[in-house]
Amino acid sequence: MASENELKEQLATCARIFAMQGMLGLHGHVSVYQPETKRVLITPGSGSDKAKLQADQMVVSDLAGKAIDGKGRPPLEWPIHMALHAARPDAIAIAHLHPPYSTLFAISKREYQPITVHSSIFGEGVPLYTEPHLIETVERGAKLLEVIGNKRAAFMRAHGITVVAENLMELLHATLALENDALKTLQTDAMGGAKTLSVEECRAINKEIKLDNIAQRTWTYYSTLEARWDHQPGTGRVELFP
Amino acid sequence: MASENELKEQLATCARIFAMQGMLGLHGHVSVYQPETKRVLITPGSGSDKAKLQADQMVVSDLAGKAIDGKGRPPLEWPIHMALHAARPDAIAIAHLHPPYSTLFAISKREYQPITVHSSIFGEGVPLYTEPHLIETVERGAKLLEVIGNKRAAFMRAHGITVVAENLMELLHATLALENDALKTLQTDAMGGAKTLSVEECRAINKEIKLDNIAQRTWTYYSTLEARWDHQPGTGRVELFP
Amino acid sequence: MASENELKEQLATCARIFAMQGMLGLHGHVSVYQPETKRVLITPGSGSDKAKLQADQMVVSDLAGKAIDGKGRPPLEWPIHMALHAARPDAIAIAHLHPPYSTLFAISKREYQPITVHSSIFGEGVPLYTEPHLIETVERGAKLLEVIGNKRAAFMRAHGITVVAENLMELLHATLALENDALKTLQTDAMGGAKTLSVEECRAINKEIKLDNIAQRTWTYYSTLEARWDHQPGTGRVELFP
Amino acid sequence: MASENELKEQLATCARIFAMQGMLGLHGHVSVYQPETKRVLITPGSGSDKAKLQADQMVVSDLAGKAIDGKGRPPLEWPIHMALHAARPDAIAIAHLHPPYSTLFAISKREYQPITVHSSIFGEGVPLYTEPHLIETVERGAKLLEVIGNKRAAFMRAHGITVVAENLMELLHATLALENDALKTLQTDAMGGAKTLSVEECRAINKEIKLDNIAQRTWTYYSTLEARWDHQPGTGRVELFP
Repeated sequence: MASENELKEQLATCARIFAMQGMLGLHGHVSVYQPETKRVLITPGSGSDKAKLQADQMVVSDLAGKAIDGKGRPPLEWPIHMALHAARPDAIAIAHLHPPYSTLFAISKREYQPITVHSSIFGEGVPLYTEPHLIETVERGAKLLEVIGNKRAAFMRAHGITVVAENLMELLHATLALENDALKTLQTDAMGGAKTLSVEECRAINKEIKLDNIAQRTWTYYSTLEARWDHQPGTGRVELFP
Repeated sequence: MASENELKEQLATCARIFAMQGMLGLHGHVSVYQPETKRVLITPGSGSDKAKLQADQMVVSDLAGKAIDGKGRPPLEWPIHMALHAARPDAIAIAHLHPPYSTLFAISKREYQPITVHSSIFGEGVPLYTEPHLIETVERGAKLLEVIGNKRAAFMRAHGITVVAENLMELLHATLALENDALKTLQTDAMGGAKTLSVEECRAINKEIKLDNIAQRTWTYYSTLEARWDHQPGTGRVELFP
Repeated sequence: MASENELKEQLATCARIFAMQGMLGLHGHVSVYQPETKRVLITPGSGSDKAKLQADQMVVSDLAGKAIDGKGRPPLEWPIHMALHAARPDAIAIAHLHPPYSTLFAISKREYQPITVHSSIFGEGVPLYTEPHLIETVERGAKLLEVIGNKRAAFMRAHGITVVAENLMELLHATLALENDALKTLQTDAMGGAKTLSVEECRAINKEIKLDNIAQRTWTYYSTLEARWDHQPGTGRVELFP
Repeated sequence: MASENELKEQLATCARIFAMQGMLGLHGHVSVYQPETKRVLITPGSGSDKAKLQADQMVVSDLAGKAIDGKGRPPLEWPIHMALHAARPDAIAIAHLHPPYSTLFAISKREYQPITVHSSIFGEGVPLYTEPHLIETVERGAKLLEVIGNKRAAFMRAHGITVVAENLMELLHATLALENDALKTLQTDAMGGAKTLSVEECRAINKEIKLDNIAQRTWTYYSTLEARWDHQPGTGRVELFP
């Protein structure tokens, strides 16, 4: 079993990778739960520079959203994490993000369906939380839990996404896979639509591509890249106008 | 009350953040007004390198567009700023920009409607100034004032946008929110359209997410990033052709 | 009058700016003509690293495409430049490029119409050269001249664009303006189409925004940025798949 | 004839160029075959940092996918490479990638047709492998060979692409050309569709633009850029939300 310090390191790395990918910035947070101690480790709130997060900045909280160490407070929308950690034994790692592409499914009228071999893990569906507000109360957290059910993720209208996984490696992989699929859906929609994967096709792929195995490769690759990233907020090409 | 020097520092920071975001470049300007002294601080005109602007480059002008310090002149389209600063007590900070995405609403036939919880502040609408020209005269400035009324922003046909706010922090937040919504509108239009937010939904969100509070977080986050930005004009991937 | 060495410096700067913008890379070339001496200065061919071009790499050629200095040869498609330089007194500076966005008008079925105040200079139209091949012969150069007539630019089917101007500053500005309009046309097409500018509106704008004046500002701005560019071939965010 | 060490250097360079272009990352691999020795050189599997690959990391394998040197193993989907290297004398260099744009043709319902002078080499068509799974068995490799026939490339449903060429230079050029065409197809589809090139037009272009000649220029240009690349995993502009 990983120690709390090891988990803090992993959590900070996971957050920096999401930042490198442009999927975690001003807002958004990632958490990991320790069922033995009922302690939640969670990234700090919206003031912090996610690309530079270190293990000692991780907030330790109980399931009621109360900071344990006295260092920092859980972010405003902590009820997202606590509702899911408390209720689902398979929800050990949770990301609440507003990534550029998967958030589009929280906004557009279009339903999500997997289109690549990586997103077959979402073959059972990704439900929509329909209220356009932040999840700042325990009641709203409970409502999100009800909506997400036993699924891997939910879209949150006019807002963002929540993804759950059994560990941080699988969380990273699943969230990247959903984001990649969302981008490609946007693009193939402009090309006459995608040949989506059926539930049966997804299940067949899931049997061949083992999530724990591929998630480990994803983690190794992205953490290697993050370790040599210059952490620059980049810019694109210079527009004439402006 | 902030001193003029403090305001110059804030204004230069705001401009550099817009530059980092690719929203201010060759053209565009940002201003802040001091009602007590009737002095306007404004970023310099189109020759300047916006990513490198410093406080001592800020131009000080009166409401007639006349430079007070003798250092530099207000940019060509100063009537945009002066018309709004003079007439609206809530127009303390103003940005006239041509950002890559919100400018699309000044060009396309499509009307803007908020689609994310951040853009609910634009729930009362964003009018269109229909003449395709620069606002180089006092008369055109007056016409823009008439068009924008008591709204937070206006689109300017074939040209760009103007956003007004009560201070520079709120100006930064509001302009980023509008730009983000514009990008996501473009994208969700390609996916069958967005579930837009109604006026009532926007008002409900505005009651929960306080603008001054969230604007402060936005400012803290982006000024932290700008402070460690290498200020490089970036390039994208290298195209084969070219 | 600028000396040949000064012109070589300007030409190299212009090419590096296009490279910074992702508009000149493996292929493409820019030339400037000296009517007094009938000498053409032109950037070297497709092997060269455009982002690093220096004045002493500029090729000097006569109007028959024969290198004069013996240093290097004009690029393969020199007949584009020579046909236009020889025939049109207003074609002093010429760019043949394949920019990411304006090239789309050489491919798509759609006709180009100006949509921003900057592109009003193209209000008289941009014709299409319909043959999908390279302009490697004098005959094809003559055909391009016939197609382009007295216009500022032409699209070349399945290939790229050619832009002509009275000097390198105006060439830079006009080419950036066309590219910007092409990008925004692509985007507004996905949003239900643009409110295009009529010929009359373009002419009215052209009277107010003087090309020589704005071109100088564009040159100053972009050459300042290029001077502090790290010349890195950038990458975007890291895709999961790949 | 190039020595095995020279080929390893070329292969590593080719892989780093694909990485620079954002076309090779976590997944994907490139191989080159030596008919005289029946040895295959191939890039390592999904854990490795493709932007940093060096010649001594290249895996040497026989046609049965068995590592010869004992250093590393061929990647999981080696049957793609071995099936094609063994059967087609013109399949000396092979890339299996999941590039951002050409992969869209493996997902969308749309058929591919060449639209630029560079992609005329694909005028004979690019078939689709319809099963949505990884090519992890010799049987699936044989099926891919059957689908691809004597064509230059195949799309692989919900997955990626495979491109074959007579050497690494032509492989690089052809893969970049296909990716560029895919991007431009996506874009022109949003603009009312492209004027595609007919088979006859493609053949005419292929007679004028010699593949071996242009591929050498492409190689020179991109390897020059890669040699001075800082190998940073970049980021785009910072999104507000996130």
